[in-house]
Amino acid sequence: MKRIGVADTTFARFDMGGSAIDELKNLGTGYKIERYTVPGIKDLPVACKKLIEEKNCDIVIALGMPGAQLIDKQCAHEASNGLIQVQLLTNTHIIEVFVHEDEAKDEKELKWLADRRSREHAVNVYKLVFKHDILTKDVGKGLRQGFEDAGPLD
Amino acid sequence: MKRIGVADTTFARFDMGGSAIDELKNLGTGYKIERYTVPGIKDLPVACKKLIEEKNCDIVIALGMPGAQLIDKQCAHEASNGLIQVQLLTNTHIIEVFVHEDEAKDEKELKWLADRRSREHAVNVYKLVFKHDILTKDVGKGLRQGFEDAGPLD
Amino acid sequence: MKRIGVADTTFARFDMGGSAIDELKNLGTGYKIERYTVPGIKDLPVACKKLIEEKNCDIVIALGMPGAQLIDKQCAHEASNGLIQVQLLTNTHIIEVFVHEDEAKDEKELKWLADRRSREHAVNVYKLVFKHDILTKDVGKGLRQGFEDAGPLD
Amino acid sequence: MKRIGVADTTFARFDMGGSAIDELKNLGTGYKIERYTVPGIKDLPVACKKLIEEKNCDIVIALGMPGAQLIDKQCAHEASNGLIQVQLLTNTHIIEVFVHEDEAKDEKELKWLADRRSREHAVNVYKLVFKHDILTKDVGKGLRQGFEDAGPLD
Amino acid sequence: MKRIGVADTTFARFDMGGSAIDELKNLGTGYKIERYTVPGIKDLPVACKKLIEEKNCDIVIALGMPGAQLIDKQCAHEASNGLIQVQLLTNTHIIEVFVHEDEAKDEKELKWLADRRSREHAVNVYKLVFKHDILTKDVGKGLRQGFEDAGPLD
Repeated sequence: MKRIGVADTTFARFDMGGSAIDELKNLGTGYKIERYTVPGIKDLPVACKKLIEEKNCDIVIALGMPGAQLIDKQCAHEASNGLIQVQLLTNTHIIEVFVHEDEAKDEKELKWLADRRSREHAVNVYKLVFKHDILTKDVGKGLRQGFEDAGPLD
Repeated sequence: MKRIGVADTTFARFDMGGSAIDELKNLGTGYKIERYTVPGIKDLPVACKKLIEEKNCDIVIALGMPGAQLIDKQCAHEASNGLIQVQLLTNTHIIEVFVHEDEAKDEKELKWLADRRSREHAVNVYKLVFKHDILTKDVGKGLRQGFEDAGPLD
Repeated sequence: MKRIGVADTTFARFDMGGSAIDELKNLGTGYKIERYTVPGIKDLPVACKKLIEEKNCDIVIALGMPGAQLIDKQCAHEASNGLIQVQLLTNTHIIEVFVHEDEAKDEKELKWLADRRSREHAVNVYKLVFKHDILTKDVGKGLRQGFEDAGPLD
Repeated sequence: MKRIGVADTTFARFDMGGSAIDELKNLGTGYKIERYTVPGIKDLPVACKKLIEEKNCDIVIALGMPGAQLIDKQCAHEASNGLIQVQLLTNTHIIEVFVHEDEAKDEKELKWLADRRSREHAVNVYKLVFKHDILTKDVGKGLRQGFEDAGPLD
Repeated sequence: MKRIGVADTTFARFDMGGSAIDELKNLGTGYKIERYTVPGIKDLPVACKKLIEEKNCDIVIALGMPGAQLIDKQCAHEASNGLIQVQLLTNTHIIEVFVHEDEAKDEKELKWLADRRSREHAVNVYKLVFKHDILTKDVGKGLRQGFEDAGPLD
């Protein structure tokens, strides 16, 4: 039985962790979900480390929604650096799912994007845990999570 | 008996640690406060590490007030990175409460903001220590500390 | 028998890992390739660490294609920092091969660039593993991977 | 007997370490000074680590004078990150005293600023080592080192 | 017998390591040189770590020539951070000698600058290894490597 960690925030304006969990349920079984909610994205790195080391998660999906201001971009940068550090300290994947508030043209699209990106990255999480080699089939295909794929060149 | 660390600075123009401690007292008992004051925000990371490792704190709230100039923003960035590193080295939450001097329209609002953000983050600290699972109830609600909540999308 | 790790992404719009592997085959034998595909460049650092520590690779080539937007540049920066950290944690070289989408004037040139840079860095990988001292012969020659060499001054 | 490390540079255009040492002598006794001079500010982090680990310093004051160009700002940023890392690796305070060449309106003021900031931070060093609790008396007072204090809000 | 590491790149457009080694020979004896050439500046951190840990170097001089574009500046920043990390992991000095392609007004000056800065930093390396205390004599003198010294204030 694998353990999948879901780390999310009260800062986000959409229940991204909920979308990820719902999608994981559609994908298959053989895992248990450990959820950990924190105030903001800068709290995610240690939350993920605790999920891995204290809850024995085999992978974590970390979801957040940085704001549109310069300071929010900096917070996202700091959080991302932290998430990479945790991965290196634990040799465990953390799939970061950040949706920036200014990525969408209005709140409706932002909601759609947050749901879709969370779901598409849940698929990546599932593949990384259960059938990692399948990812090489899609190498270089310009895949995106949320908006449409860029596709391969030419 | 839990131990809550409060790390603050003489650089800040408001006693944010005092607000946090006062709020914690309103929230309940079962904890002891360890306070550690340093000159500026870049001294906060090691202060927090010492609170955790030498004073056995279960969580720390780190409060500071970066100035409005570019160099102050950079200091805040460096301090934030350090605070994340400490969390990863200790598997312990540090709630960062930074109020930038240029976030408010005048000194009166800045004072109000520093007090309110410190108090609202004190609530987060309390929840993380004493009833962590309650945070998941508020996931995706667009909560903010200080100014009003952004609220959930839709 | 040496082991060469190839870490690449489904985000990239060209099979850069394929080019690197093809080039390595032209260069000689005496090594085994371990390939590891991840969703995006920020997943590369832990992938490389796992290739080194779990698959015993003697060197890794990490290939990715950051997008043209500011957020993509930031992701590339975070990934690069992570790749350097992995090298320091393992005393093992990781040759980073990033092709930014806005480096080329059109998709055709981008494809050519992604192929050529991957191949030219595969040569560096081969030299680092099998005949490291030969690199000193080319010191200060202004070598570039992809576009033409800058050449030595004067 | 405490040991206070003083790390400074030949790049700086003023003997900031000298000012700090002179001020420390005015403040009291009970400590020994270990001085370590390096070429530039990016050499300060390892100098501080060596002062702490090889010379058994209880605290270090790191003094430097970054230039006015963009590259100098970046060097200062890298040095600051390094200084924070050293603190976290050693659980020891390092008080960073940087005077940027473009902080003052002319060379005369720059000299005055370098002397004064070094002295005022020497006081912080002394307090941190010998009477740390006294700092909490000044929490939130908007203290500055060099130019005049910002003072508390309201 | 001391060991001095020289890490340089094939990306640089001038044999900076050659200049450093030549200068070291002028300065005295009592050391052995270990040279390690890598493709680019981002490969320097692990090269330096290997020189220190696998070749037992007492100090390393790391030489590179970042390009003039924004991406080159970012690479230099990442490399510098890595070089500082290596120093902290090994308690060993690494003298970074970077000459940015846009520092000089033409190729002739760039060549002169690369040679001179490499030589002047080789002197720093020599002093750090063989007569470290002599550096304090030059504290605060506004020394520069390459272009002329800024000199002390006043």
